[in-house]
Amino acid sequence: MTILSGLRITECAAFIAGPFATMSLAALGAEVIRIDPLEGGLDYHRWPVTDSGRSLYWAGLNKGKKSVSIDLRSPEGRELAQAIITAPGEDGGIFITNFPATGWLDYEKLKARRGDLIMANILGNRDGSTALDYTVNCAVGFPAVTGTPGELTPTNHVLPAWDLLCGMTAATGLLAAERHRRKHGAGQLLKIALSDIALAVVGDLGFIAEVQINGHERERHGNHIFGAFGHDFETRDDRRIMVAAVSLGQWKTLCKATGTGDSITKLEQSENLDFAREGDRFAARDKIAALLAPWFAARTVAQAAAALDSERACWGLYQSFAQLVKEDPRCSPANALFAPVHHPHIGTTLTARSPIDFAACKPTPPGTGPVLGQHTDEVLSEVLKLSGAQIGALHDKNVIGGAAR
Amino acid sequence: MTILSGLRITECAAFIAGPFATMSLAALGAEVIRIDPLEGGLDYHRWPVTDSGRSLYWAGLNKGKKSVSIDLRSPEGRELAQAIITAPGEDGGIFITNFPATGWLDYEKLKARRGDLIMANILGNRDGSTALDYTVNCAVGFPAVTGTPGELTPTNHVLPAWDLLCGMTAATGLLAAERHRRKHGAGQLLKIALSDIALAVVGDLGFIAEVQINGHERERHGNHIFGAFGHDFETRDDRRIMVAAVSLGQWKTLCKATGTGDSITKLEQSENLDFAREGDRFAARDKIAALLAPWFAARTVAQAAAALDSERACWGLYQSFAQLVKEDPRCSPANALFAPVHHPHIGTTLTARSPIDFAACKPTPPGTGPVLGQHTDEVLSEVLKLSGAQIGALHDKNVIGGAAR
Repeated sequence: MTILSGLRITECAAFIAGPFATMSLAALGAEVIRIDPLEGGLDYHRWPVTDSGRSLYWAGLNKGKKSVSIDLRSPEGRELAQAIITAPGEDGGIFITNFPATGWLDYEKLKARRGDLIMANILGNRDGSTALDYTVNCAVGFPAVTGTPGELTPTNHVLPAWDLLCGMTAATGLLAAERHRRKHGAGQLLKIALSDIALAVVGDLGFIAEVQINGHERERHGNHIFGAFGHDFETRDDRRIMVAAVSLGQWKTLCKATGTGDSITKLEQSENLDFAREGDRFAARDKIAALLAPWFAARTVAQAAAALDSERACWGLYQSFAQLVKEDPRCSPANALFAPVHHPHIGTTLTARSPIDFAACKPTPPGTGPVLGQHTDEVLSEVLKLSGAQIGALHDKNVIGGAAR
Repeated sequence: MTILSGLRITECAAFIAGPFATMSLAALGAEVIRIDPLEGGLDYHRWPVTDSGRSLYWAGLNKGKKSVSIDLRSPEGRELAQAIITAPGEDGGIFITNFPATGWLDYEKLKARRGDLIMANILGNRDGSTALDYTVNCAVGFPAVTGTPGELTPTNHVLPAWDLLCGMTAATGLLAAERHRRKHGAGQLLKIALSDIALAVVGDLGFIAEVQINGHERERHGNHIFGAFGHDFETRDDRRIMVAAVSLGQWKTLCKATGTGDSITKLEQSENLDFAREGDRFAARDKIAALLAPWFAARTVAQAAAALDSERACWGLYQSFAQLVKEDPRCSPANALFAPVHHPHIGTTLTARSPIDFAACKPTPPGTGPVLGQHTDEVLSEVLKLSGAQIGALHDKNVIGGAAR
């Protein structure tokens, strides 16, 4: 038994937040049915793509789901989609969308078909206006403090962090709502705005209070870790290492591993600082980095790694995506997280299962991305109990699609 | 009734992932008890801090929790902590830690006290070795592609995205495990490695497949949105705007709002591209940006905003943290997400409740960060049913602490 065995979730969504929410729940064993238009949804061709135009992004974010393709412009198709969303069963009736919840996706209309429906609607802004990760991120301050001090232009992040966090927040919300329904019988509508996810985090991490209480805002600190010591260093073999000394223990191990204790103590005395205090390490960050830099410059990564590991110092190697895939054992089948998975249109790639291990439940193996429409017949048969003849008639009328070529 | 009314979770954790997990569940109405050493945990002084040294970070990430301080070096203190973690009640017995689960935090020892305990252990790496957001992020490729093309050094992100995502993943995992226990009676140990969170996402978004299938890796594209069109533009009043045209609809509204349709069509023809295809927009990104730049340069933010909004184009304004706090109505009590909340050691700041709205449940108001040890007596009385005399004796022996000054 997997941890979410039996739970059934339907999705009409695109891009990251919604699909990532349900992909994460599918990786815990939930049955996730993604419904798309016959030609595929808005994200069906989203880059990166293979040479033949298959979306690696779509495959990745829909892993382990069942794909149903329906002509969602036709009344008959919409009726089918609503029927799947609201199909009976105590573990069903859970739906997520990041489209406007109007028309056939209106919560009240769906609720009329299943009174205890749980529906999560992911919005851009709370008022329903559009926002994407990129247009939220620029507004919440981080691009202004990312990159080298002195730069005059903002630096966008590449990781769609807000989308991912929004998706996982929606997953948490759906499970909370399912718990409530199990205890009290009632379903409900959840609303989650992408911009609220970012705004809440800006507050959680103290950035709002810095402005309101301290009267100033965070500055750009390049690759320094704010409020402690952490920086990147070049090695003799032209690689870069990030070291982190946030806790006192990490600071002590770093000094010991690099044998810089004496010169660090001299610096501490000359600056009249106490490096046991994280803020004092931050105040002297450039001078500390200057003391450490020669140690790294004199060593290869392998030599630095051996010394740092011998003291259990906290460090990481900068890697490109290719270096990560080709050289890091954590990104290989040696890590139980991963297994090679074959996709008929794409080939075989290293694929992750859920990063959560549940000791008492069987892990769900890494899923493959579905072929668009691959599970249309299966879902109509199993969930809606349609006959082969009924399904055939829907195909004949082009209301539903089979597995895309 | 709030969505997680009644659920009780105990936390022995520090920094972001663990505290953020439980802060998010407290914001949904769970009772969260954070246990710290008498002098505060590793993150008790984490920056940003007020002028008087109070951590805004600690206050933010522990909002809405109860704080219990105990001498965790003493056997008697450890006994108390274990008793709280494993206290009876069908909604209790849920525990999260990001410390090594050994000694008095060993799962088997805790399980011996409560057989159906659910315990989540957040690790750095799966093998138990140390890793922080900074030392994971450098390894998974993003710093190498963040920043301006041509830069030779990596750019770290400032947002601790992996920590946050790890925390919310742990919240999802705890609710999944609680569902399983409710249905089947069994608790269990969950393990979640920070580096696995990042590695899984690198795969989900297609970066691993780009290397393995396409044989090349993502390059640095500055502030361009990969595989579609999106870029930042300077306005006449020296501000910057991010526009995003990922979907075809967004692309059409952008062209219409900026009146650049004709010149865009000419570019399309001269380049022999079809901008209805997102990849073709990406291929011509620099030339498209060059066509759009004069439109923005000729307009103030207000003028550009009016035109973009009239077509419902997707855009966002770059803001510093101070601009966000002082100028954006989304970051004010006008947004139902926020309310001013007072903290006795810090003052009053705009504070977020959960970004999830549950239509059928009462929202939990934004919580305030506790004072260290503020709830020690309350928790020992209510959860462990200790008498006033017993609690007094523990204070006398300095086994427990009261509210810090």
